[in-house]
Amino acid sequence: MKSPNIQIRDDGRLRHFLSIEGLNYGLLNEILDTAESFAGVAEQSVKKVPLLRGKTIVNLFFEASTRTRTTFELAAKRLSADVLNINVDVSSAAKGETLLDTLRNLEAMQVDMFVVRHKDSGTAHFIARHVLPHVSVINAGDGRHAHPTQAMLDMYTIRREKGSDFGRLTVAIVGDIAHSRVARSQIHALNLLTTGEVRIIAPRTLVPSHVESLGVRVFHELREGLRDADVVIMLRLQRERMQGGLLPSEHEYYQLYGLTEEKLSMAKPDVTVMHPGPINRGVEMDSQVADGPRSVILQQVTYGIAVRMAVMSMAMQKKVAQDADA
Amino acid sequence: MKSPNIQIRDDGRLRHFLSIEGLNYGLLNEILDTAESFAGVAEQSVKKVPLLRGKTIVNLFFEASTRTRTTFELAAKRLSADVLNINVDVSSAAKGETLLDTLRNLEAMQVDMFVVRHKDSGTAHFIARHVLPHVSVINAGDGRHAHPTQAMLDMYTIRREKGSDFGRLTVAIVGDIAHSRVARSQIHALNLLTTGEVRIIAPRTLVPSHVESLGVRVFHELREGLRDADVVIMLRLQRERMQGGLLPSEHEYYQLYGLTEEKLSMAKPDVTVMHPGPINRGVEMDSQVADGPRSVILQQVTYGIAVRMAVMSMAMQKKVAQDADA
Amino acid sequence: MKSPNIQIRDDGRLRHFLSIEGLNYGLLNEILDTAESFAGVAEQSVKKVPLLRGKTIVNLFFEASTRTRTTFELAAKRLSADVLNINVDVSSAAKGETLLDTLRNLEAMQVDMFVVRHKDSGTAHFIARHVLPHVSVINAGDGRHAHPTQAMLDMYTIRREKGSDFGRLTVAIVGDIAHSRVARSQIHALNLLTTGEVRIIAPRTLVPSHVESLGVRVFHELREGLRDADVVIMLRLQRERMQGGLLPSEHEYYQLYGLTEEKLSMAKPDVTVMHPGPINRGVEMDSQVADGPRSVILQQVTYGIAVRMAVMSMAMQKKVAQDADA
Repeated sequence: MKSPNIQIRDDGRLRHFLSIEGLNYGLLNEILDTAESFAGVAEQSVKKVPLLRGKTIVNLFFEASTRTRTTFELAAKRLSADVLNINVDVSSAAKGETLLDTLRNLEAMQVDMFVVRHKDSGTAHFIARHVLPHVSVINAGDGRHAHPTQAMLDMYTIRREKGSDFGRLTVAIVGDIAHSRVARSQIHALNLLTTGEVRIIAPRTLVPSHVESLGVRVFHELREGLRDADVVIMLRLQRERMQGGLLPSEHEYYQLYGLTEEKLSMAKPDVTVMHPGPINRGVEMDSQVADGPRSVILQQVTYGIAVRMAVMSMAMQKKVAQDADA
Repeated sequence: MKSPNIQIRDDGRLRHFLSIEGLNYGLLNEILDTAESFAGVAEQSVKKVPLLRGKTIVNLFFEASTRTRTTFELAAKRLSADVLNINVDVSSAAKGETLLDTLRNLEAMQVDMFVVRHKDSGTAHFIARHVLPHVSVINAGDGRHAHPTQAMLDMYTIRREKGSDFGRLTVAIVGDIAHSRVARSQIHALNLLTTGEVRIIAPRTLVPSHVESLGVRVFHELREGLRDADVVIMLRLQRERMQGGLLPSEHEYYQLYGLTEEKLSMAKPDVTVMHPGPINRGVEMDSQVADGPRSVILQQVTYGIAVRMAVMSMAMQKKVAQDADA
Repeated sequence: MKSPNIQIRDDGRLRHFLSIEGLNYGLLNEILDTAESFAGVAEQSVKKVPLLRGKTIVNLFFEASTRTRTTFELAAKRLSADVLNINVDVSSAAKGETLLDTLRNLEAMQVDMFVVRHKDSGTAHFIARHVLPHVSVINAGDGRHAHPTQAMLDMYTIRREKGSDFGRLTVAIVGDIAHSRVARSQIHALNLLTTGEVRIIAPRTLVPSHVESLGVRVFHELREGLRDADVVIMLRLQRERMQGGLLPSEHEYYQLYGLTEEKLSMAKPDVTVMHPGPINRGVEMDSQVADGPRSVILQQVTYGIAVRMAVMSMAMQKKVAQDADA
């Protein structure tokens, strides 16, 4: 279903940002370097750069997510773009318009970029395959497939905390790996950045079936998996899964996989604790850990704006350059 | 109910844009010419002009329409205005506030323009009769009455495709004429622009009762009505009407009035096919026609932004000029 | 529950704007003076000043109010800030995130100001006690506690109408005092501005229990309470209260407490009539009064934008100055 190079222009630059798969070491580092330059913008008094002034960015959300939409909206505004928020539940979808017609129609309004969120895997790629040559697509989460901006803000956070040599790091991802688009994107990114060891820690029911191909070490016991880890990434537990019978109860999950100070003591003393938010306190982790000195959960949010600004501006860069020539 | 000159200032310039009725040949051409100048803006790298900077435009939608609201919001932003979206369903209407109180209240916030959408015919005129002298009103669709920006973007599309001599053109409008505010506005605009022949093609149940006064030729058979037409405008079928018993079924409607390549061959070889969107594929027309070389349906959307920018800036022009003097 | 000085910086300047309690005569007058300077902005052709350009203001509404949200959004846009509207009903609250987590998360996006509306008294203070040092909080209404921007726009209106010597004025507030956050804030503001006499006029069931401490004269009969008043402030009747049995019926309420021209004749001939809107015509007051020459209800709305611009810019002033130094 995926065409690996749809994301990359002929000259090697980023065109779309759909999944970590299909990208390369150079581009991932370029994203991290560009994010670094934007991290400073938010600390200035005037938190804006005129890079995308006069561009139109559409947040095309087929699945509601105030939190994710907000980060993209802020990133776009800080790049001085005009932003349209379109929630397709309440819109033309109700009138029976096809996805492609919705897309063509918005494109005809001379839109420059779509930020797409959809409950079905593959939608962002589908849209990217059908947009006009000058339009870029950013995947803000599609089904169980990918959430690449979340993964890249995690990579940026790790680099800020641990330096750019991922080769010497052991990173453990804990939770419902099987159903997580975040975990999929994280694993691909960690691999591309040549992370020393990538571990997943999950109950047997929540390990993806194709796990061998991901190049990760699998653990079913939290303490064991945390041993000497440099970074622990906790996934958010989707409570809906509980009711499906894959897990016995929140309480039992917390007993086995909830991160406490005690369990965390298995990891390196300077271990970094991450979580994509929002946290279910007392389920995925104890508040003492979430708010403790090793947690960088709020920094992740801050870096998320810079990373989204980086990806958006890189995808538009060719166009900006072309326009400047014209 | 209508006061024909409420839309025009004493010096002949546009004040409100409520319906094609009440306007004149000169103003319609000025709208088309102004739209022409804005069509270029959207092709620039920075798709913005500072014409309405510091003005406040309120999208006052009493009837949800993401599609129409989006086009007005984009047009306003590309004119650099500040835009407020107010959906009155979920707002003060619930608190029992009258329309006039809502209006007075927003006016008191020093709003410069209302873009109004309402399910009741005449609402835009009603509002225009009650606003303060410096406030302009744009009708974004009221009941079965009028949808004049849609009509003007159709006129602009015809001019782009066929040149400005409407006198030599035969234009056919197909579908539920009786219930269509779009058709009403189109017929008035085509007549004002001195179109050679305006035809309506519809089942007897969907022809408006006052049809004779509209100066159109009526056809009940699609092939016959299409003969030698230069332009075919398909209306969107409101599926709700089906249930009212005015039409037997979508399938039967398509058999009789759905546009196919075969039926279209009755028209001139270079016929232009239009539709206000969103299309019910396989009901109003075949996908082969919708996506074919004679269809300009997506161009209509593009031109719609330029036409809305034209109407908005013209209605504010007096004020802009006055303000500049001050 | 309240820490009185949380609103004021060490150097005496405004940091948060949460309630009139805790402020002082000097600050209230500074707000009124600053509002005066912004009142002119809205009358210019370009209704914007670049004072908060590049700042991010979040309208964090836990209780829907299009009307109030609109005035804050407009005020922020006219100060050139970037505005995010977040309605927490439909957001992460549904995912079980705590208020503090929501707050921390938004703060991490380098937000500069929260405008907070909540159905629970004390929420704005709670948030203010927990935000980062550089973040300001504006209370846009919390439970029955306070609605200080409404009170200050009322004070500004009185000053415009009657001059700045509040000492010679008699101001009567009429309606459901007991349940009104607006009344509470008004009484505190009138007292701080050393108003000659503050009266409340209400049925016994709608007089707050701690009324003696408020320094007001209490009347249960409208005509009597209006005698020689300079200003009459009508409160909005919450129809929900009716059903609670505190009041017999709208009709009876109107008979006893509805403002008519006849009853108003008890007040001074140049009495000023105010109402926070939206008016229940024929309940709180007769349309003849609402739309009559002594009503300044629409001016209140206009002044409301200027007062909100004043409060927002004052709360950010320190930061603006600091940033300029850096």
